[in-house]
Amino acid sequence: MGASVEQLAVNTIRVLAADATANANSGHPGAPMGMAPVAHVLFSKFMRFNPKNPKWLNRDRFVLSNGHACALIYTLLHLYGYAVTLEDLKRFRQVDSITPGHPEAHDTPGIEVTTGPLGQGISNAVGLAIAQAHTAATFNKPGFDLVDNYTYVFLGDGCLQEGVSSEACSLAGHLQLGNLIAIWDDNHITIDGDTNVSFTEDVLKRYESYGWQVLTVSDGDHDLEGVAAAIKKAQEVKDKPTIIKLTTTIGFGSKLQGTHSVHGSPLKADDIKQLKQAFGFNPEQSFVVPQEVYDFCNKVAAEGASKEQEWNNLLAKYAEQYKEEYEDLIRRQKGDLPEGWEKHLPVYTPSDPAIASRKLSENILNKIFSVIPELMGGSADLTGSNLTLAKGTVDFQPPSTGLGDYSGRYIRYGVREHGMGAIMNGLAAYGTVIPYSGTFLNFVSYAAGAVRLSALSQVRVIWVATHDSIGLGEDGPTHQPIETLAHFRALPNCMVWRPADGNETSAAYYVALTSKHTPSIIALSRQNLPQLENSTVEHAIKGGYVVHEQEGADITLISTGSEVGICVDTIKELAKQNIKARVVSLPCWEVFDAQSKDYRLSVLPDGIPSLSVEVMSTLGWERYAHEQFGLNRFGASGPYKDVYKKFEFTPEGIAKRAVATVNFWKDVPNIRSPINRAFEQLI
Amino acid sequence: MGASVEQLAVNTIRVLAADATANANSGHPGAPMGMAPVAHVLFSKFMRFNPKNPKWLNRDRFVLSNGHACALIYTLLHLYGYAVTLEDLKRFRQVDSITPGHPEAHDTPGIEVTTGPLGQGISNAVGLAIAQAHTAATFNKPGFDLVDNYTYVFLGDGCLQEGVSSEACSLAGHLQLGNLIAIWDDNHITIDGDTNVSFTEDVLKRYESYGWQVLTVSDGDHDLEGVAAAIKKAQEVKDKPTIIKLTTTIGFGSKLQGTHSVHGSPLKADDIKQLKQAFGFNPEQSFVVPQEVYDFCNKVAAEGASKEQEWNNLLAKYAEQYKEEYEDLIRRQKGDLPEGWEKHLPVYTPSDPAIASRKLSENILNKIFSVIPELMGGSADLTGSNLTLAKGTVDFQPPSTGLGDYSGRYIRYGVREHGMGAIMNGLAAYGTVIPYSGTFLNFVSYAAGAVRLSALSQVRVIWVATHDSIGLGEDGPTHQPIETLAHFRALPNCMVWRPADGNETSAAYYVALTSKHTPSIIALSRQNLPQLENSTVEHAIKGGYVVHEQEGADITLISTGSEVGICVDTIKELAKQNIKARVVSLPCWEVFDAQSKDYRLSVLPDGIPSLSVEVMSTLGWERYAHEQFGLNRFGASGPYKDVYKKFEFTPEGIAKRAVATVNFWKDVPNIRSPINRAFEQLI
Ligand SMILES: [Ca+2]
Ligand SMILES: [Ca+2]
Repeated sequence: MGASVEQLAVNTIRVLAADATANANSGHPGAPMGMAPVAHVLFSKFMRFNPKNPKWLNRDRFVLSNGHACALIYTLLHLYGYAVTLEDLKRFRQVDSITPGHPEAHDTPGIEVTTGPLGQGISNAVGLAIAQAHTAATFNKPGFDLVDNYTYVFLGDGCLQEGVSSEACSLAGHLQLGNLIAIWDDNHITIDGDTNVSFTEDVLKRYESYGWQVLTVSDGDHDLEGVAAAIKKAQEVKDKPTIIKLTTTIGFGSKLQGTHSVHGSPLKADDIKQLKQAFGFNPEQSFVVPQEVYDFCNKVAAEGASKEQEWNNLLAKYAEQYKEEYEDLIRRQKGDLPEGWEKHLPVYTPSDPAIASRKLSENILNKIFSVIPELMGGSADLTGSNLTLAKGTVDFQPPSTGLGDYSGRYIRYGVREHGMGAIMNGLAAYGTVIPYSGTFLNFVSYAAGAVRLSALSQVRVIWVATHDSIGLGEDGPTHQPIETLAHFRALPNCMVWRPADGNETSAAYYVALTSKHTPSIIALSRQNLPQLENSTVEHAIKGGYVVHEQEGADITLISTGSEVGICVDTIKELAKQNIKARVVSLPCWEVFDAQSKDYRLSVLPDGIPSLSVEVMSTLGWERYAHEQFGLNRFGASGPYKDVYKKFEFTPEGIAKRAVATVNFWKDVPNIRSPINRAFEQLI
Repeated sequence: MGASVEQLAVNTIRVLAADATANANSGHPGAPMGMAPVAHVLFSKFMRFNPKNPKWLNRDRFVLSNGHACALIYTLLHLYGYAVTLEDLKRFRQVDSITPGHPEAHDTPGIEVTTGPLGQGISNAVGLAIAQAHTAATFNKPGFDLVDNYTYVFLGDGCLQEGVSSEACSLAGHLQLGNLIAIWDDNHITIDGDTNVSFTEDVLKRYESYGWQVLTVSDGDHDLEGVAAAIKKAQEVKDKPTIIKLTTTIGFGSKLQGTHSVHGSPLKADDIKQLKQAFGFNPEQSFVVPQEVYDFCNKVAAEGASKEQEWNNLLAKYAEQYKEEYEDLIRRQKGDLPEGWEKHLPVYTPSDPAIASRKLSENILNKIFSVIPELMGGSADLTGSNLTLAKGTVDFQPPSTGLGDYSGRYIRYGVREHGMGAIMNGLAAYGTVIPYSGTFLNFVSYAAGAVRLSALSQVRVIWVATHDSIGLGEDGPTHQPIETLAHFRALPNCMVWRPADGNETSAAYYVALTSKHTPSIIALSRQNLPQLENSTVEHAIKGGYVVHEQEGADITLISTGSEVGICVDTIKELAKQNIKARVVSLPCWEVFDAQSKDYRLSVLPDGIPSLSVEVMSTLGWERYAHEQFGLNRFGASGPYKDVYKKFEFTPEGIAKRAVATVNFWKDVPNIRSPINRAFEQLI
């Protein structure tokens, strides 16, 4: 077979993808085989990358939004010389390999974002493109186009059907993100069969309605030049993102090509054999890469390396002329915050007035937003409620709108929580930006799919989640979170904060901002909260501490957020009944759990019973408290004080349950703190 | 002011909405005031309804998707004579009123679905329209157009921005739902100000791309005839849903009309005064309805009542000619299942082979699908994985596609989990259908916003949530749920099932199908599970029971789903170390919690320590077990047995922790079962 090296490279991708999935006896060969041509064209002719430094700032970003096709990207990473070996391809989908069943950014060099859950990757890509535009507008100078990379995305029908991508892509059109180029694998196949069963909309027309450029390549199986021409045209349009509809044959080369049989199951042995034969490979061998393909790819990679070298030279000159900007850029990439930033966090004393914690959060943002230039804020159309806009902030907007510019640091996400979450993941993944965004706590749930990936992919993303309980009052049960904190507390590597006052809110921001690899949700009240007696930032950054100590206490009241102050008020109520109560604030379980056992036992000691108080689901509170007072039902619409009263979250209501707790545990000798466990958890 | 009664009716709505929000000192007057004209036209000229019987099957359905505008619908319900009094309007947004801050279907007569969380209502409406088309295709006969109602929706910009509505509306276009008519309140205002800051897409073009008819009315403030003409045109097109872009002035009549100041805050006293003056109302009085407006509305209502009477006559004739269909229809509306249906639930004995619970679920569907004709299935493009398609089922599809017809009972949702969840809520709300749908458990989280509303609005909706744990194996951490069960266990009025074998799976379906007012999530395994010794449907419908009893046991192992069998295998392992273990299966916490305390204590007795075993977050297990073995981290990609081994979910790994548990609790006298609590929870 006298195929050109280009065609051979394409077929090598196909064969390796078939080998990897067959060897694992698991995975999705169809999309990699169908998308091999476009992947080859993109990586060999357009993508700017240096496999030896996958973190080079000005690299083009590649996102495989149809993450189930990961055999494709693993194969590419291997061919072009990233630290992904043939051995790694053989360990595809095996425990502890760097080639898991879907691409995970923190596992594999060259993977930008964690994808697989459909619709996320394309939405992350919008974030990557925003970050690029913003970083360019912030750091580029005349003669110094330091940052001008493209963001390329492959996506399938599934990604287009998911609402999260609709949200993100509508915003991308509004924002005129010209450096974002999406390539839609239009193979007409989904798991349920033909896309005709459920997906007959005119996708390109929809993207036009969003303000995207739309292009078509009708023979994605063979027309490498058409593919190249389309990508070039996409690059040329600077004020619109582009989507290229690329018609391909799923599982190209398989006997079952074009059917959904090749979507999610490896090819059979005889099918792989004929595939290899047809492509000029030895049918008896697996995981073979022709040397000329390696040579070809190495050459491309070497060009990439020299492009990085040129860029490094440019950066060195930049460092001379723009020292301050240079140092800022280097610092940001390390993930370090500016020296001394934490001195700007507000601190409070008990004599300060009661303030809603959403307002405390605004105070913090007003203080630190100018000190931490990599902060990029936003809200899902609740700016005035979330109080997420620091004073004097310019909007991130296309300059042509007259509403801001790309150096602006506040994103108007619209009512698009899920898109916002996925975009924040992309913003964080870019490497020069720390995103935070606001919505009501209840609607963080709309973004659950994205929050989960923040946690899994270990990105620093902050949710300013206001209106955090029945305390929001009149909006009622549709807006009052009950299950939300339990949900995200159960999510690994996600910090959930519910600060009780000013110092705790500052502590929440401190830990959220200094945790480079963990997202945070900061739950904030609509109603005013008093400043507590023993609250300091130093105490609160431990995740839990004693707000009120009492010699010979009969009970520990453990609480968070707006209920801590009510628990403090309950002390007097209990004193009337000769019960001595101590009060603990536990604003962040995850952080508290990371403290030494000695410390935790000093906060939640043996010998006395404890009662948790939080106006939402009690689920999980059994981990810290012997008894739990919460709300295992939906809330109610009304002025918040009436709602609190209805559910007895008052000093009297809490005291009643505290008395019951003391009585119930009276007969138990040597009461054990729940901190004591028989064995360590898997974390 | 010589206004016609029509104009007076419009202005009465505006004034009452202003009064209600001002009186509550909370709420959203702007949209009700802007949409008063279209609401008046719709209710007086088009809507078919009888306020005296809000449950009349063939009524037109009205959905206020922009639920924050609920002062509008409460006002309409009052004016037309539903059981909503002026007093109720005065108690708007007060605790325990029937006029809460957002419309709740189970609270207020005339409210079809619970809205407020944006994007949900329009998506529910798609479900209502599907149910209408399906019920018509199933029950209508020549000369008997029993079911031919329309579904009308009001929605705002926020609803259009939410991805859930994109998903549902794309599907609605595909399904050619001609009886669905949406009216978009195009007032250019969102909370963040002008929609220009984030929402500049061409909405109508987008809806055209979905296959909708799109219409425009440019003066929604005054052009009542134009509004009527548009609705008429919408009714005439039978094979497309319609969206009408209606340009209105938010807060029409207020001094601040057209600004976002009137969106979410009541009008000031002087503004209301001038409003009333301008509209010919006494500025010193509140909550006043001119008698001629009542008269006008009463006349409309009376016409509605007589239409129902005509329909009842038609139904009586139908009952004679189509006795069986008639009885089926009546039964369905009561929510009762066909007599004896439960006899079709499969039962198993321990000698039956090990079967994956997703397959057990398929077996059930194959048995009961023909017995319970109101079941409507579906999947978010994972039919072959979820095994949700009962044998021989016809697709619900527009006949013109040649892929099915409207009497079909299987919906191809596409990769649209959130849309699917919201559509199921609409299907259930219609009253003649019980929806179930499949996706991976992990992706039920994408639909969290809709699941929450299933629970709050008390609808019977079933999620067939397969691939329920790390047991799905190779797909890896992006697909392996960790936090999901904790999330939905914490959600009130939502049953989470994780059956361990065949009888437990039948029990899960039994309880899910007979719980008329509670949604269920049934978590099902990909891997095979053995049939357990003591498992029966009767035991499992209690939510928890003893799988293996042991005299003088040293420990209780408590588990769910795929881990119960491993716990049974652990008995032998522990016996080697002279530890006697009993095993409890707890497939549904919510149902177990509803059993008598005596029963619960018989399952989880005092005196011995207990250990929970479940391959996901331990959060909440402290409620039942003294110690917890789970996975408070993300999973791993690999063959499932390897993954279980990696995390030590093997008889050896469990035994190790059981020994630690026994040792740790050895010194504690009179160990108390966690079932014992100091006081009752608020549920
Ligand atoms: Ca967490
Ligand atoms: Ca629940």
